[in-house]
Amino acid sequence: MNNNLLEVFEVKVAIAGAGAMGSRFGMMLAQGGNDVTLIDGWLAHIKAIQENGLQANYNGKNVSVHLPVKLQSEVDSTEKFDLVIIFTKSMQLAQMLSDIQGVLGQKTKVLCLLNGLGHVETLEKYVPRENIFLGNTMWTAGLEGPGKVKLFGFGSVELQNVGERKEEDAKQIADFLSQSGLNASYSDNILYSIYRKACVNGTMNCLTTLLDCNMGQFGATSTAHQIVVKIVNEFAAVAKVEKINLDVSELVKHVESCYDPSVADHYPSMYQDLIQNKRKTEIDYINGAISRKGQKYGVPTPYCDLLTAMIHAKEELLEAK
Amino acid sequence: MNNNLLEVFEVKVAIAGAGAMGSRFGMMLAQGGNDVTLIDGWLAHIKAIQENGLQANYNGKNVSVHLPVKLQSEVDSTEKFDLVIIFTKSMQLAQMLSDIQGVLGQKTKVLCLLNGLGHVETLEKYVPRENIFLGNTMWTAGLEGPGKVKLFGFGSVELQNVGERKEEDAKQIADFLSQSGLNASYSDNILYSIYRKACVNGTMNCLTTLLDCNMGQFGATSTAHQIVVKIVNEFAAVAKVEKINLDVSELVKHVESCYDPSVADHYPSMYQDLIQNKRKTEIDYINGAISRKGQKYGVPTPYCDLLTAMIHAKEELLEAK
Repeated sequence: MNNNLLEVFEVKVAIAGAGAMGSRFGMMLAQGGNDVTLIDGWLAHIKAIQENGLQANYNGKNVSVHLPVKLQSEVDSTEKFDLVIIFTKSMQLAQMLSDIQGVLGQKTKVLCLLNGLGHVETLEKYVPRENIFLGNTMWTAGLEGPGKVKLFGFGSVELQNVGERKEEDAKQIADFLSQSGLNASYSDNILYSIYRKACVNGTMNCLTTLLDCNMGQFGATSTAHQIVVKIVNEFAAVAKVEKINLDVSELVKHVESCYDPSVADHYPSMYQDLIQNKRKTEIDYINGAISRKGQKYGVPTPYCDLLTAMIHAKEELLEAK
Repeated sequence: MNNNLLEVFEVKVAIAGAGAMGSRFGMMLAQGGNDVTLIDGWLAHIKAIQENGLQANYNGKNVSVHLPVKLQSEVDSTEKFDLVIIFTKSMQLAQMLSDIQGVLGQKTKVLCLLNGLGHVETLEKYVPRENIFLGNTMWTAGLEGPGKVKLFGFGSVELQNVGERKEEDAKQIADFLSQSGLNASYSDNILYSIYRKACVNGTMNCLTTLLDCNMGQFGATSTAHQIVVKIVNEFAAVAKVEKINLDVSELVKHVESCYDPSVADHYPSMYQDLIQNKRKTEIDYINGAISRKGQKYGVPTPYCDLLTAMIHAKEELLEAK
């Protein structure tokens, strides 16, 4: 990828972490005429895609796309990518970056679209700062089984450069994604957007998981509001040290929009991971990240501390893998 | 009851709240030759006792004792008691005191043996301060059904006067209870004992309830210790304002003795109430009392605040009665 990205014929893209959302991005970029490779760590998923292509229920239509797909531990280091879009689970980020070192060239741009906080610190260990781009997506996607995804609705992407004076590169990446219908735009304050989304995850995820309920049921309790307000204030106090001024009352309203009847019966990803599938959670990259930052900055974050500790206890009680 | 309590022939005792523990005290005091009346709000329990007596599996032997028993809303105000021992659930204390106003004479001593904190404030609304005695018991008891209890093992009682210069009365009440085998003693710092027990309840009760596990399972998690330490420190910070200096490290060890194999598989009363029986909990008199006191004293108690709010949310989610 060079600085005239939109003028070159083809951009070699890798999706590192081809779960539900990675599959959406891979499929849409491939449909947009690009050279896309999927990289993932789940063997059954990879085999299914190799045999039958990536199969999607795409807004109600069955679609199948044949794409190169590789096991992350076996990526071929002779091939370099122009753009790597990362969509692993938070706790798999470091391993993925370590596994794909060989395909990251000097100019390979790495766009991290993971939920959660604190990923730049990990990215910087593997990728030069000027090649790192951080983003946030409102697209949704569901994994139905190995090689099969369900992709409904409409979404958007916001992204920004992490390195200095790389705004133009960020804008070009956004344009590139938009050419395949991904509705991406440049943000001059991506950390605000990431914190804003993390406030939703940092309340709905752990609370529905610990209380064993969906978002609407939690929202209907008499103590939901006071708990949400306290947690959002902890996020805001930590963000403030990073010179990001969260609007607490707007954010509380944003969180509480999760109780809207249209989404109220949703069980957040952490609930699905831990309660339904006995898998470890991303708590260390949501409330746990606030706790670590709070400790580093000297900002008390007791609600995040306790919720993180309780989720870890619950992971152990359920013997989550 | 006068100041020569032990010299009088008979002391008229009422047990207000004749559940498992109240039944134990009632039975042991009756077996000790005293005039004991049970007062309770559960009609089926009262009817069973009226028909068949109070039946107990008493250390493996079946015992039945016939005692006068009254519905609390129908107590006869012409009869005054010398000593009323209160064993209601915390949230039933005010209603009980209101219902039994008629049988409290000018000199009726009221001994409150409830778990939890903050009961003196309620007692003072119904009983002159000089007649209030506060205690704490290590006896155990289980309710097996209407009129039936299971009483095993050995225990003790500690108690102290709340009114000034009533130490002698407290000592006489302790002697009176001991005459029936209740192993009671005077304490010159009953609030320390009550706080010490509340620390166990304020950790094990809410945490096992929210995490859906027994005490040993909770104790085996890697985050249990850090959570317990934080909560005990909040209890200590609040107690300190009341000039009670809790020994935090001793108390943490005391709490963590709940993980001992001999008791580790126990589900605390709050778990039994809420998770097993869908009944409202005593959280407002344990962690909730620390939160209220903390707010009043300007002492931050975020762990107790959050745990109280989460237990109330769980009560509502389970439609606890």
